[in-house]
Amino acid sequence: MKFKGFFDYFLLSVALWCLVCQNRVEGRLLSLSKPNPDAAASFARWLVSQNSWGVLNTLSSDLGGAPFGNVVSFSDGLPDEGRGIPYFYLTTLDPTASNALKDQRSSLTISEYPVGTCGKADPENPTCSKITLTGKLKVVDGNTGDAEFAKKALFAKHPEMKGWPKDHNFQFFKLEIENIFLINWFGGPKPVTVEQYLQAKMNKLSFAA
Amino acid sequence: MKFKGFFDYFLLSVALWCLVCQNRVEGRLLSLSKPNPDAAASFARWLVSQNSWGVLNTLSSDLGGAPFGNVVSFSDGLPDEGRGIPYFYLTTLDPTASNALKDQRSSLTISEYPVGTCGKADPENPTCSKITLTGKLKVVDGNTGDAEFAKKALFAKHPEMKGWPKDHNFQFFKLEIENIFLINWFGGPKPVTVEQYLQAKMNKLSFAA
Repeated sequence: MKFKGFFDYFLLSVALWCLVCQNRVEGRLLSLSKPNPDAAASFARWLVSQNSWGVLNTLSSDLGGAPFGNVVSFSDGLPDEGRGIPYFYLTTLDPTASNALKDQRSSLTISEYPVGTCGKADPENPTCSKITLTGKLKVVDGNTGDAEFAKKALFAKHPEMKGWPKDHNFQFFKLEIENIFLINWFGGPKPVTVEQYLQAKMNKLSFAA
Repeated sequence: MKFKGFFDYFLLSVALWCLVCQNRVEGRLLSLSKPNPDAAASFARWLVSQNSWGVLNTLSSDLGGAPFGNVVSFSDGLPDEGRGIPYFYLTTLDPTASNALKDQRSSLTISEYPVGTCGKADPENPTCSKITLTGKLKVVDGNTGDAEFAKKALFAKHPEMKGWPKDHNFQFFKLEIENIFLINWFGGPKPVTVEQYLQAKMNKLSFAA
């Protein structure tokens, strides 16, 4: 009986542990629910706020003006309080920042795929949404409210940035958005103006699978 | 006692089910093992072959020559038989293909982050690897061995492509690589020539956590 009791306890522990792990891995807690694809501006804001990284594109000064994409982390605000404008923490040791200092034309591209809400759709399937924000990549002026916001927004979503090497001269940058390309369903890009995007209201708190 | 037996059975079932799920989610089966970061060419090939999507950059003819990144699916060969050259299945209904037909300068950017092997590193941390292949994005000539390879490579990794609408005029494209930008550890980009990359040997089959 003693062994049996231990066995029960062991099984119960394993079961509970597994259920906790399952929730952590599969039961993704999204505090902002995914908007209807027809609500294009809100959908775009949701997609930007739910991602923490994307590909930032500049014109390569080293490679004859070729379009040069680079994986970067970004943040548009504190978690669930995104404002839509992506901020970055970049060093000129990396080509993206030095390209932008020569030519500010830039875009940020984000996929829904890593968020985990595309179901079985291929990453290129239009129901698996994607967004490209095109504009100017600019240094955020130091000692301003904007710089303070950039710091809070980035360090909240990317805590390890606080410890990145001081001698690498990291600086805050932001993308001033001029054009929005959003695909979130069949039928081609959804028209969204920058004004609609920045003023979009987000859905209330909810759980989403 | 009968109830106790049922309870044991129930716990055992939950435990076994959870363990299977855990393996499916966390015990990622990679048939090519991740090379040492110092083996730059093999590492680059591994990163390209393990991913099925990335951001393809072109120069936007609609947006004043801005760099325009777009989420796309790609394949460099049959699973675990990648040859390093990325192939795409694109339609001119999408700006990327139409941009490339006007100016072939292009790049493909891929992150290790969605592969799931970055541990706790931030997507911008240099130990979470990333690669940008820069070159020319070209249409693959129809009725050639190259077109046959493109079709097999893409449809094996992206089965739903077979059913994509015929009237959208999808075509096979490939990136002729001219430059490789690889970050896979501290200390800046790893030098890799296109020749080293294309000739790199891949590691043998193995399981990786």
